[in-house]
Amino acid sequence: MSDSLEKLYKYVEDNKQYMIDQLREVVAIPSVSAESGKRSEVIRMGHWLRDRLEKLGAKTKLAELGNQEVDGKTIPLPPIVLGQYGSDPNKKTITIYGHYDVQPAYKSDGWDTEPFTLVQAEDGRLIGRGATDDKGPVLGWLLCLEAHQKLGLDVPVNLKFCFEGMEESGSDGLDDLIVREADGWLKGTDFTCISDDNWLGTERPCLTYGLRGNNYYHIEVSGPSADLHSGVFGGVVHEPMTALISVMSKLVDTNGKILIPGVYDQVAKFTQEESKHYEGLSFKNQDLIDDMKFDCLIYENETDTLKSCWRYPSLSLHGIEGAFYSPGCKTVIPSKVIGKFSIRTVPDMDIDTLNKLVTGYVEDEFKKVGSKCSVTVSCIHSGRWWYSSPNHPNFVAGANAMTRVFGIAPEYKREGGSIPITLTFEEALKANVLILPMGAANDSPHSTNEKIDQFNFLNGIKLFGAYWDEISKL
Amino acid sequence: MSDSLEKLYKYVEDNKQYMIDQLREVVAIPSVSAESGKRSEVIRMGHWLRDRLEKLGAKTKLAELGNQEVDGKTIPLPPIVLGQYGSDPNKKTITIYGHYDVQPAYKSDGWDTEPFTLVQAEDGRLIGRGATDDKGPVLGWLLCLEAHQKLGLDVPVNLKFCFEGMEESGSDGLDDLIVREADGWLKGTDFTCISDDNWLGTERPCLTYGLRGNNYYHIEVSGPSADLHSGVFGGVVHEPMTALISVMSKLVDTNGKILIPGVYDQVAKFTQEESKHYEGLSFKNQDLIDDMKFDCLIYENETDTLKSCWRYPSLSLHGIEGAFYSPGCKTVIPSKVIGKFSIRTVPDMDIDTLNKLVTGYVEDEFKKVGSKCSVTVSCIHSGRWWYSSPNHPNFVAGANAMTRVFGIAPEYKREGGSIPITLTFEEALKANVLILPMGAANDSPHSTNEKIDQFNFLNGIKLFGAYWDEISKL
Repeated sequence: MSDSLEKLYKYVEDNKQYMIDQLREVVAIPSVSAESGKRSEVIRMGHWLRDRLEKLGAKTKLAELGNQEVDGKTIPLPPIVLGQYGSDPNKKTITIYGHYDVQPAYKSDGWDTEPFTLVQAEDGRLIGRGATDDKGPVLGWLLCLEAHQKLGLDVPVNLKFCFEGMEESGSDGLDDLIVREADGWLKGTDFTCISDDNWLGTERPCLTYGLRGNNYYHIEVSGPSADLHSGVFGGVVHEPMTALISVMSKLVDTNGKILIPGVYDQVAKFTQEESKHYEGLSFKNQDLIDDMKFDCLIYENETDTLKSCWRYPSLSLHGIEGAFYSPGCKTVIPSKVIGKFSIRTVPDMDIDTLNKLVTGYVEDEFKKVGSKCSVTVSCIHSGRWWYSSPNHPNFVAGANAMTRVFGIAPEYKREGGSIPITLTFEEALKANVLILPMGAANDSPHSTNEKIDQFNFLNGIKLFGAYWDEISKL
Repeated sequence: MSDSLEKLYKYVEDNKQYMIDQLREVVAIPSVSAESGKRSEVIRMGHWLRDRLEKLGAKTKLAELGNQEVDGKTIPLPPIVLGQYGSDPNKKTITIYGHYDVQPAYKSDGWDTEPFTLVQAEDGRLIGRGATDDKGPVLGWLLCLEAHQKLGLDVPVNLKFCFEGMEESGSDGLDDLIVREADGWLKGTDFTCISDDNWLGTERPCLTYGLRGNNYYHIEVSGPSADLHSGVFGGVVHEPMTALISVMSKLVDTNGKILIPGVYDQVAKFTQEESKHYEGLSFKNQDLIDDMKFDCLIYENETDTLKSCWRYPSLSLHGIEGAFYSPGCKTVIPSKVIGKFSIRTVPDMDIDTLNKLVTGYVEDEFKKVGSKCSVTVSCIHSGRWWYSSPNHPNFVAGANAMTRVFGIAPEYKREGGSIPITLTFEEALKANVLILPMGAANDSPHSTNEKIDQFNFLNGIKLFGAYWDEISKL
C-alpha cells in the first residue's frame, strides 16, 4: 500500500468523530425536495455544499434551473452545485455525481428517533434521513478531499463535482444541464463515478454494472361522452372497463412471464461468462421475504431471483385512471379508463421495437374483445437500460480500491431499477460511469430509520481516496 | 269525467302561471344535500314544506335524524317532513313519498342558465335544478291539495306525506324512520305512491312496475406488507394486481354476459304475458346513443336493449382501490388492491344464493391463477330487486288516471336502477307501491339544464287528483 493511502486511512480513523459530526450537520438540514414548504432547506443545503467546496479551494458555480409549479404555487428549483478541483493536464479527470436532497421523513411515519437528528447507535449505526441516500456519500467525497489537504497529500486526479437537489423528485433540469455542460464545465471528464446505491449484502463491498430501463405505457379505452349509471346502462352497453381489464389480463402471467410475443427475442442470451457473476453472492431470498413480511417470491433459488431482477424484463400493472378508486362503493360505469403498466427493459432490448410489439399486441387483443369502444396505446416515457463491462478500467480501478480497503474483492451486481442519469452522463460526456456504493443492503433508504453504518461511512471515505489513487495509476 | 275533476283541470289551466311561480320559488332554494355548505338551504327547504303543509291544514312533524360527519365537520341531517291530511275511516289512505333535496349544480358545469333560477322557455320547458327531480312532483301534490281546497272540493282520500332531504346523498336515516313509523305516523296506509321517476319517452305517460336490485362486491388481494419498487421486485414476486386483474377479467364478457356459473339459473323465465309489455314502446336505441354521444350498444333492437336493462342481471366493473389512479406515471407495485364490481339483480334472484355463487367462483378462479397472494371476497351491500304486478289495484288506479288526463293508456316500464326505498315502504307498510312518474324521458335529472315540461308539470297535478279519485272508487 502506498504511504499516502496509509496516512489517509489513519487520518480517517483518528478523526472519525469529526467526520460523523459533519454528517450530523448535513442530516440536520431537512432538504426534502418533494415538499414545497421545505424548498428553502434544500437550497440551504446546496449553498452549504458550495461554501464547503470553496473552502476546499474548488471553483464553484450554482447552476440555477428556474422555477417549478407545485400545488398552484411557483417555487424556485434548487441549484445544481458544480465544482472543480484541479486542472492538471497530466492527471485524469473524474466527474463525481451525487444528490443533496432527501426523501420526506416524519417521526410519525414509524421512526424510532427524530429523522433529522443523527443518532449514533451502540451497534455502529448512524441513523438519520439521508445518511446513506445520499448525504453520506456526497459528504464522503468532500471529507476525503479535506483529508488530503490536511495531510498535505497530492490529490492524484482532477475532480469535477455535480451535486443536484431534485433527485428524489424527478431530477428536474439535470439532463439538460449535463448535455449543456458536456462541452463546458464537465469537459475533459475521463471517468464518471456515482455513489448513490447500496451493496448487495451487508458484509462485502460491491460494484454495480447494470441497470434496467423502464418503458411506461397507457392503454386508454373510451366510449360514452360521460360516466353512465350502471343501473340504466349495465348490460346494455360495451363498458370501457370490461374491455380494458380483459386486455390488461393478457399482458403478463402470475409468474411474471410477459405474454407479448417477441419481447424475449430481444433479450441477450445468458452466457457462461455472465454466470460467474452469480456464484457465491451474498444474497438470500429470505432477505426479500423479511423485507416484505410475506413470501410471494416466484423463484425458490437465489440465482433465479437475481436473474429475473437483473437481466430479464418484467411487466407490472400499476393501476387505472378514470375508474373508481376510493374506499366504499360507487356504481358508475366509467366512460374513459386508462390502464397503466410498465416494462423494465434489459440488454439488448430496443425501445422502438418494444413499443411496436406492445402497441400491436394490445391493439390485436382489443380487437379480439370485440368492443365498440375505442383504444389508444401510448408509451408515456422510456428510459434505456444501462450495462457496463465489469472489465472496463474504471471498474477495475473501483474493484482494486475496494480490495485494498476491505481486504476482499467486491461482488458484482446489477440493479432491477433505473438510475436514468447514468445513461445521460455516459452519453453526454462519452466517458464510462462507475457506480460505487458506500452503504449496505439494509440501510433502508426511502424508508423509516434510514442509516449508514459507521463502518461503511468511514471505509467509504477511504475507498474514495483509494479509487482516486487507482485511477491515477491507469 | 266527474264534475270535480273537470273543475280541477280547469283550475290548473286557469292558474298555471301561479303554479309555475310556485315551482320558481322552490327551485330558488339550493337544497343540495351533497354539499355541506348548503345544508342550511336543505333544512330551509324542509321547513318551507312543513309550513306549506300546515297552511293547507295538515298535521305535520319534522322527524330529526341527528348529525352527519362530512369532511371532518359535524353537520345536522335535514329532517324528514311528515304530514297528515284527513283521517276519515271511510276513505282510503295514501302515503306519498318525495324528496326535497337536489343534485349539485353550477352554471360552469355547462348550464345555459342559472341553475337555481327557474327559466320558462318558449318551447314550454321549465328549466332549473330540481324541476323534475323531485321538486316538481313534490310541489305538485301540494298544489293539487290546495286546488281542492280553493275549489271547495272534497279530497276523496286520506293523505300521508313523507318528504326527505337526503335522497341524493344516500337517504341517511330514512329506512329506519319508515320502519319506526310503520305503526305510528304511517299506520293505516292502504297504498303508497312515489313520483320520483320519468316516463320512458316524451309523449306517452307510463307506470313503473319493476326495479333491479344491486349487490356490491369487493375482491381484496393482498401480499407484501407495503408497496414495492417495481424495479427491484418486478419479475421477482407474485404481484397482487396481476392476480386481481386476471380474476376480474373472468367475471363478465364484452357483451355483458355474466360468466359466473349458476347466475342465470335464478332468473325468471320470460313469459308470453310479459312480452306484451315490450310491444310498441316509445323507446328508441337512438335515444341512448344520442345521450351517450357514442354508439356502444350491445343490441341492435329495442326489445333486447330493454330486456337486458329491465329483466336480466348485469355486472359492471367499477374500479380498483389501492392501485395508482392519478394522471401521469407511478411505477409502484401495490401491496393490496381491492377490485370493485356490482351485480344488478332481477326476479327471482336470491341475495344469499348469489353471494355464494360469486364468492365460490372468485375463489376458484383465484386458485387457478396460482398466486401466493391471498384473496378475500365480500358482499359490501345488497339491495333486493322490486317487482309489482301491473294488475294490482294501485296500478290500475294509476293507469286509469293517466288515461283520463292524457287520453291515452300508459306504457308499462321497469327500471334497470334501484330505488331502494320502494322495497322498504312495501315491506314496512305492507302496502303496494305505485311509481307514478311526472316528467318526460329527456328531463335530464342529475345533469345540466334539468327541466320539466310545462305540459308534464300541469298535467301531472291533474293526474295526482285523478289518481286520488280512482283510489277512492276502489
